[in-house]
Amino acid sequence: MTAISDIFERRESEARSYCRGFNTVFTKASGSMLTDHKGRSYIDFLAGCSSLNYGHNDPDMKTALVDHIMNDGLAHGLDLHTDTKADFLTAFETHILEPRGMDHRLMFVGPTGANAVEAAMKIARKATGRTNIIAFTNGFHGVTHGALAATGNGYHRGGAGTSLNGVTRMPYDGYLGAEFDTADLLETMLDDASSGVDAPAAILLETVQGEGGLNAARPEWVKRVADLAKKHGALLIVDDIQAGCGRTGRFFSFEEMGIKPDVITMAKSVSGFGLPMALVLVRPEYDIFGPAEHNGTFRGNTHAFVTARVAIEKFWKTDDFQKELAIKADLIAEGLAGLALLIPGATLKGRGLMRGVDVGSGELASEICARAFQKGLVIETSGPNDEVVKVLAALTTPEATLAKGLNILLDAARDVVETETKAAG
Amino acid sequence: MTAISDIFERRESEARSYCRGFNTVFTKASGSMLTDHKGRSYIDFLAGCSSLNYGHNDPDMKTALVDHIMNDGLAHGLDLHTDTKADFLTAFETHILEPRGMDHRLMFVGPTGANAVEAAMKIARKATGRTNIIAFTNGFHGVTHGALAATGNGYHRGGAGTSLNGVTRMPYDGYLGAEFDTADLLETMLDDASSGVDAPAAILLETVQGEGGLNAARPEWVKRVADLAKKHGALLIVDDIQAGCGRTGRFFSFEEMGIKPDVITMAKSVSGFGLPMALVLVRPEYDIFGPAEHNGTFRGNTHAFVTARVAIEKFWKTDDFQKELAIKADLIAEGLAGLALLIPGATLKGRGLMRGVDVGSGELASEICARAFQKGLVIETSGPNDEVVKVLAALTTPEATLAKGLNILLDAARDVVETETKAAG
Amino acid sequence: MTAISDIFERRESEARSYCRGFNTVFTKASGSMLTDHKGRSYIDFLAGCSSLNYGHNDPDMKTALVDHIMNDGLAHGLDLHTDTKADFLTAFETHILEPRGMDHRLMFVGPTGANAVEAAMKIARKATGRTNIIAFTNGFHGVTHGALAATGNGYHRGGAGTSLNGVTRMPYDGYLGAEFDTADLLETMLDDASSGVDAPAAILLETVQGEGGLNAARPEWVKRVADLAKKHGALLIVDDIQAGCGRTGRFFSFEEMGIKPDVITMAKSVSGFGLPMALVLVRPEYDIFGPAEHNGTFRGNTHAFVTARVAIEKFWKTDDFQKELAIKADLIAEGLAGLALLIPGATLKGRGLMRGVDVGSGELASEICARAFQKGLVIETSGPNDEVVKVLAALTTPEATLAKGLNILLDAARDVVETETKAAG
Amino acid sequence: MTAISDIFERRESEARSYCRGFNTVFTKASGSMLTDHKGRSYIDFLAGCSSLNYGHNDPDMKTALVDHIMNDGLAHGLDLHTDTKADFLTAFETHILEPRGMDHRLMFVGPTGANAVEAAMKIARKATGRTNIIAFTNGFHGVTHGALAATGNGYHRGGAGTSLNGVTRMPYDGYLGAEFDTADLLETMLDDASSGVDAPAAILLETVQGEGGLNAARPEWVKRVADLAKKHGALLIVDDIQAGCGRTGRFFSFEEMGIKPDVITMAKSVSGFGLPMALVLVRPEYDIFGPAEHNGTFRGNTHAFVTARVAIEKFWKTDDFQKELAIKADLIAEGLAGLALLIPGATLKGRGLMRGVDVGSGELASEICARAFQKGLVIETSGPNDEVVKVLAALTTPEATLAKGLNILLDAARDVVETETKAAG
Repeated sequence: MTAISDIFERRESEARSYCRGFNTVFTKASGSMLTDHKGRSYIDFLAGCSSLNYGHNDPDMKTALVDHIMNDGLAHGLDLHTDTKADFLTAFETHILEPRGMDHRLMFVGPTGANAVEAAMKIARKATGRTNIIAFTNGFHGVTHGALAATGNGYHRGGAGTSLNGVTRMPYDGYLGAEFDTADLLETMLDDASSGVDAPAAILLETVQGEGGLNAARPEWVKRVADLAKKHGALLIVDDIQAGCGRTGRFFSFEEMGIKPDVITMAKSVSGFGLPMALVLVRPEYDIFGPAEHNGTFRGNTHAFVTARVAIEKFWKTDDFQKELAIKADLIAEGLAGLALLIPGATLKGRGLMRGVDVGSGELASEICARAFQKGLVIETSGPNDEVVKVLAALTTPEATLAKGLNILLDAARDVVETETKAAG
Repeated sequence: MTAISDIFERRESEARSYCRGFNTVFTKASGSMLTDHKGRSYIDFLAGCSSLNYGHNDPDMKTALVDHIMNDGLAHGLDLHTDTKADFLTAFETHILEPRGMDHRLMFVGPTGANAVEAAMKIARKATGRTNIIAFTNGFHGVTHGALAATGNGYHRGGAGTSLNGVTRMPYDGYLGAEFDTADLLETMLDDASSGVDAPAAILLETVQGEGGLNAARPEWVKRVADLAKKHGALLIVDDIQAGCGRTGRFFSFEEMGIKPDVITMAKSVSGFGLPMALVLVRPEYDIFGPAEHNGTFRGNTHAFVTARVAIEKFWKTDDFQKELAIKADLIAEGLAGLALLIPGATLKGRGLMRGVDVGSGELASEICARAFQKGLVIETSGPNDEVVKVLAALTTPEATLAKGLNILLDAARDVVETETKAAG
Repeated sequence: MTAISDIFERRESEARSYCRGFNTVFTKASGSMLTDHKGRSYIDFLAGCSSLNYGHNDPDMKTALVDHIMNDGLAHGLDLHTDTKADFLTAFETHILEPRGMDHRLMFVGPTGANAVEAAMKIARKATGRTNIIAFTNGFHGVTHGALAATGNGYHRGGAGTSLNGVTRMPYDGYLGAEFDTADLLETMLDDASSGVDAPAAILLETVQGEGGLNAARPEWVKRVADLAKKHGALLIVDDIQAGCGRTGRFFSFEEMGIKPDVITMAKSVSGFGLPMALVLVRPEYDIFGPAEHNGTFRGNTHAFVTARVAIEKFWKTDDFQKELAIKADLIAEGLAGLALLIPGATLKGRGLMRGVDVGSGELASEICARAFQKGLVIETSGPNDEVVKVLAALTTPEATLAKGLNILLDAARDVVETETKAAG
Repeated sequence: MTAISDIFERRESEARSYCRGFNTVFTKASGSMLTDHKGRSYIDFLAGCSSLNYGHNDPDMKTALVDHIMNDGLAHGLDLHTDTKADFLTAFETHILEPRGMDHRLMFVGPTGANAVEAAMKIARKATGRTNIIAFTNGFHGVTHGALAATGNGYHRGGAGTSLNGVTRMPYDGYLGAEFDTADLLETMLDDASSGVDAPAAILLETVQGEGGLNAARPEWVKRVADLAKKHGALLIVDDIQAGCGRTGRFFSFEEMGIKPDVITMAKSVSGFGLPMALVLVRPEYDIFGPAEHNGTFRGNTHAFVTARVAIEKFWKTDDFQKELAIKADLIAEGLAGLALLIPGATLKGRGLMRGVDVGSGELASEICARAFQKGLVIETSGPNDEVVKVLAALTTPEATLAKGLNILLDAARDVVETETKAAG
């Protein structure tokens, strides 16, 4: 096949999106590389929007999954007990929860991040008997009705075609610059019985806002918000869907912030292999749903349990992987600092391995990404106006590939800047 | 392993459900059979709640999926173009849409039925500028906030912890017995500008209510409702998540009803293999979302595209499968008629291969299922009070296995009835 | 003054309404007669939409009110104790509540019917911890946001500019004709935990729907709904704003129906004189608001207390007035039966002294009223399409005036019918 | 009568409020004086919560009203044209609107402030097709469902028994101290399409928050908010119910702020006499309701038109009254400055003739008011914790009476402080 089939044009909904920016047909993927139908290879700095933290088709997960299938292991088991689920739970308990002193239980929800967020919001409301949930500017939590109410993005909100209620919006850390601590406002409003902010069921936050433009909250701000939640009888929900699974350098994004979220939502990379899977981690006192009170056919994707277990055992048994991540995070930061220097006013955003550069406008960011794609790099933007060039490389990307990708990105940016300068000149 | 691991008790949320009724650990599955950790085999009349219409681990799908994985086909591709998606789209167009004269487009949504329903509701609201959606008594459409508003079940609704708005509830076909045509009420209310029922964005219905107790609407009622939708400028959304993919004897549950739904939601068996996948079929004039306006990381599960394509090519190229289904539907109806005779007042419910018997009480239905499980049959209940014993066998179940399963069910019912008679006597 | 001032056109909002149909400037009013700026007199069969049940400027109330003002009695006292309020309360207790065995308390709300309905809905929700309120097709309860959700009329609902939630709509008595008892549907839905109708905080109804087209519910239907409310833990709220204060022949419209509403809303004629006043009668166990929890500057209109007391003492001390009403009700029914005979397909509507004729179309009803106005009768329409010519004469209208007004109405109808016949012929 | 009748206890709802703090029965009122059933006189610094800006029973209004009644002028006229309404409209146009260059129309709504606010919110939503309304911390706009959503007070919000939606809460001017201009936050959030604050239908504000604790916004803040409303296509609604009608020194509270609100809500003192009346002033381009689209039986209280006309002609024809107000405002400010000196940490609040002292705690404020009442002064508190002693004397209060009242207040405060000091010592 050499031409892109017109079947997409003819039969796939206009809602399709990434394919518009990366207009080819991909056929193979391995590690940090994507290959298209013409045999061309691309370095992948998108990584399934952080769903492929361990790269494409990790060989160990692949082997385990193929073995499972060949042995007629269950593909779909609703929420029946399976050996596969037991093994995943055990690995998650042993290597993730216990070492971090976490007593959370795992609730298998429908395999989308939005479903995890919806379940978390329902838990908080049912547990507290309150309805108000505090969410933040530029937060992104999914586009189903409940989750969308918590999402800040106006384009997505507009898709609802109706009002989105039950959420109070507060400014995220740094929203008004470094001088003003937005937690002051939150505290004042919560302390004031006449503020019009109803007592919250939960405070819902990302520690780094991936879609919102790679805004990284300061640990002390997160801690303060967590304390306010506790003081006011609200649950703290950390949405770790994009920032979790090692993306910030540790398994959870909030480690070392001194907080213990009541509820944590996970999805994206939790299966390790890019398979659909979502989780709600919930402290036992809030594990209040009755059997199937929140349900869904695909809660618990057995294939994903297989790969998720391998991912945990392979990467999180020791702290070797974490040490690697620290080194790679520095590499990325360094590379992006170089990019920022090319563009007047550009600023470095993010934390760990979810980093980017705010280049000031969505047009510019988009041109840089388009040029990078021509040069063999898949990379995307984020932010309220898509003004942040965002690096979400697989965490397992070899250093040489990381360097190569960053170089392509710099070349692309240089090209775009030069072209603009000429055009202006 | 002989004991059931206590990891489930320790770390899995109380929301777990099916595992409570079928308290063993399943390890293998093939066709219509499940095997547990003790090597015991069960006939599966649950079939992943209609997610395994083609049985467990269909050999052709299995082969295709393993080949795909071994060849480093993409596991996760966001909504990038892939050869796998192109092939699936082509098969769906060729064997499903074109033969039925359908111009619908496929919108890949997050891989849960609820996500498909949420997308459908958003489409209807955005397209019409209206917010009201008409749904029916005993309807089940998922448990995320938007979809849950349309779901009738009070237990699930209660899980929201907040009000569920934007939906007007109307009585489903037969809700008040055969004498009263509930479409009369719908028509009168829609025609009356002072009824208090706001002009609807959509009418949302299942042609057979799977979770609601296997209530099968009469084709003429569905047709009339479809006409009312059109007359009042509302979209007709058919939720074919449980009833679609051959479950009623044809690919879609509404074939031969003379209607053309504006939007159709699909999930469960659409991947063919039990893998998470959901679809919204939408007529071109309502394909109104902009790029990623409704989005989600797992929209489009590449593994599922592989198996879904095989499923379509294997089962829906010709009408052979459909003919088989007619025969099996009769077998099931016959077997269940026998069951109904055992229990005073019991009535046959459902249509095609989603059939059951309303035994009058949830307790009785539950005892029958429990006894059947002891005898080697996995079978569940549905209905507002779980009073319907529900057969959802894989459509591919061999006739002999169907007969065997039905016999176990009859034996189980007989045992329970006898025990009760003795106890009463 | 002979011309109508253009000040109305220039400075009064387009929302003005009655003045469009009765396009003159009224300057005086007494009993059942209105006089305009040209000195022309009209019989008033509108009576302030049932706010002037005792006619305009009743001489006893007038005297008491003027005395009060001349003596510097309070005009405005918030909800301070005043002698005037004490006297009103005492009269209401002695002549209204005690003889009917009612233990209700009086809550003085903002002086609009809508405010009374809002307070009633809040009471029900706070008392039960539930949010759903059941209201009926064609019900009218006001146009503020909470009350409007319960109002059926689509024109008024459209004015909200947003969704109206928290209300489930059920068909009123007779909505689908005499054969179908709509209470069957209500009962079935409330008994069915999976109907999608959440457990109600209240059932809210008018026993005669004044704005909705003079639909009079059968006592046995009201009783059955009351019993369903009790059975399901919901409060029964009777909105007696238009039908109360003698309009149906007794003080309350629900007397002799064997029910005891938990909450009763009153407004319109409760002041006796047309002054703004609204009341919520609430049984002691539901008198649950804390001080000022529902408040408002004009809760308790002192001038209205003065006239309301006189009204009660003058008309409700004995049953003489009630006996008169029975006679007048018959006169009206008789006169309207004559009207109905003139118009093919016309039907008599209403009960007591809120009677009308459904003439089949809003155009026809409107023409009849316009012609009647030319002949010296002020009369209006109601109903979903304004198709009901509605007689709401003051209850004190002398029989001769009633007869005269009815004759004008008949003449007007005859004229219109003849004109139409000619036009058609 | 010497004892307070127990009829209140027996038959008036627990929602009664002011009568608890001023536990006597009032029988007469004139100017700034109230008299109780024992003949005791009180200076009235409550003035019907700013509903009696011209004092009790103003002799000119009284005469006009009695004349009207004696002449059988209409008491109730729905929204029919009356000579009385024409005269009021003419006076309002001539002396209020025209001199201020205002082209607003008058919409007569149900006679409660809440009704005016509900109508204003509906206008904004209908006009813009948007649903979100921005309101501020500590704002008070009424307790019906729509208005209550905009009200900040948690006690009142709790009375709803359900969620209150459609309003985004922003911090009022000075909410976080003088250093932080809260309009910065509003601007940033409105400019940010991803802030989660949906494009607003309106910004709704009081220029001085009466119930919220006499917070007076700076003119430049109000102007900036007005500009933001215009920039973002939102209507500016000024709720002038408490602050209007001269209370801040001019007829409208926003005069000389350089703004032109699209919608203004009025109630309380607009009738001049304490009679129930409410108004929405709306610019012609937003006068979009159809006839009766927002309606209500008591829209337009004819008695109130009579007194309202006199009030305007008597007080607002020239600027004499305004000049007096400036002098009295100074007297009050001076007196209260003295009060503030008595109490450590106390601060002066408010503007014009709506002034008070924040004494730091609701207990202290309440004790001061209770002691003042013993000494013959009726005065109340406001603020989120009722911590502000609030002077709302009639604007017509003679200077000597003002001085006398302020002296009583100072004495009361001194007593309370001394008692507390002794208790502590």
